[in-house]
Amino acid sequence: MKRIELNESVYARNNGIAQEVRRALDARGIRMYNLLGTPGSGKTTLLEQLLRCDNRRIAVIEGDLFTDEDAQRIRACGVQAVQLNTQGACHLEADAVAQALGQLDLDGIDTIVVDNVGNLVCTAEFSLGEHRRIAVISVTEGNDKPRKYPLIFRTSDIVVLNKMDLLPYTNFDPVRFARDVRQLNPRVEILSCAAVRGEGVQELRKRLTGDRNKEDG
Amino acid sequence: MKRIELNESVYARNNGIAQEVRRALDARGIRMYNLLGTPGSGKTTLLEQLLRCDNRRIAVIEGDLFTDEDAQRIRACGVQAVQLNTQGACHLEADAVAQALGQLDLDGIDTIVVDNVGNLVCTAEFSLGEHRRIAVISVTEGNDKPRKYPLIFRTSDIVVLNKMDLLPYTNFDPVRFARDVRQLNPRVEILSCAAVRGEGVQELRKRLTGDRNKEDG
Repeated sequence: MKRIELNESVYARNNGIAQEVRRALDARGIRMYNLLGTPGSGKTTLLEQLLRCDNRRIAVIEGDLFTDEDAQRIRACGVQAVQLNTQGACHLEADAVAQALGQLDLDGIDTIVVDNVGNLVCTAEFSLGEHRRIAVISVTEGNDKPRKYPLIFRTSDIVVLNKMDLLPYTNFDPVRFARDVRQLNPRVEILSCAAVRGEGVQELRKRLTGDRNKEDG
Repeated sequence: MKRIELNESVYARNNGIAQEVRRALDARGIRMYNLLGTPGSGKTTLLEQLLRCDNRRIAVIEGDLFTDEDAQRIRACGVQAVQLNTQGACHLEADAVAQALGQLDLDGIDTIVVDNVGNLVCTAEFSLGEHRRIAVISVTEGNDKPRKYPLIFRTSDIVVLNKMDLLPYTNFDPVRFARDVRQLNPRVEILSCAAVRGEGVQELRKRLTGDRNKEDG
């Protein structure tokens, strides 16, 4: 009972900071995306490909338990990146993102992407102040994931079904997957992708640019 | 600060129950294995294949956030299974396993396999009273996982590298993976597997049988 109360206060505190983060971003006309998914679903590869299309006004916050390997990969695309290391914790929280934002030069930036810790459960429970959530799942992970891990699908605006290049070698059924995801979240957009080949990345880029244009209009 | 103290008391309480679970299993001559890994790494498929080789004296405890799909898959192999649903929590704890053990008919059983929630972070932090830990990771998840998620590799006795049938279609380097895992855990055994085809499963079965024989000897 004590534990549940504490969890609720952890969520409430996090949500308060997330709201502050979002207000600060709104004041600067910056949109933030929270990229979530299983370890190895291809989030960082997708992001690299996205930055190869268009990196002029984007900055990245990388989340991992340990190492700065992903921030190095992003910087190699010519993009500012701050690496957050949770030192073993399973998700990012809004206070760490607020600190990371303070380390970025936001002049000329209109889009921030947070590449969250690889985790299909805990990351979905914590708002970072993002405007949109993008869940990345790969066809090698099996069809049962929406039914077993509903929260991440329920709270995402876009679901990217990645590693479509491996589809012929699996028993994954994309039609069933889309049906299960839409049952949890009727308004979600589902995009198919083979990030390693750059396939489908333009579609995601158009969504992000569309968001910016809607803001401007 | 309060949060850290509470976490410590959560771990201490769990460890106490885990020790009781292990004592109860030892008293009956039963060995328990904790199967850990990313969602979609192929833990349940591996277990199905293992049960097709030898299921006479094995019972299974399935862990998932929601659904009893995996318990149904195990029962279809002719094996007793109890499904634990965490209702959103990201790992199993020892008290739930203790309750599940009470629901199994343990007469004639000498091996319990716990198929943990899919999670590369939080599951590794909680002992369930198991005698051995088996981490399952697939070649589609990328080479960086041991460096980013060290605890699960550090605390496992066996690492199963699964989905070797997909290796030709990835840039995964098994030699580098083995080197990184051994750097974290020099005593670990690494087995290669293509569970979906039943390849490499006999090797894992031999380890489990070997454990039993060592116990008998």
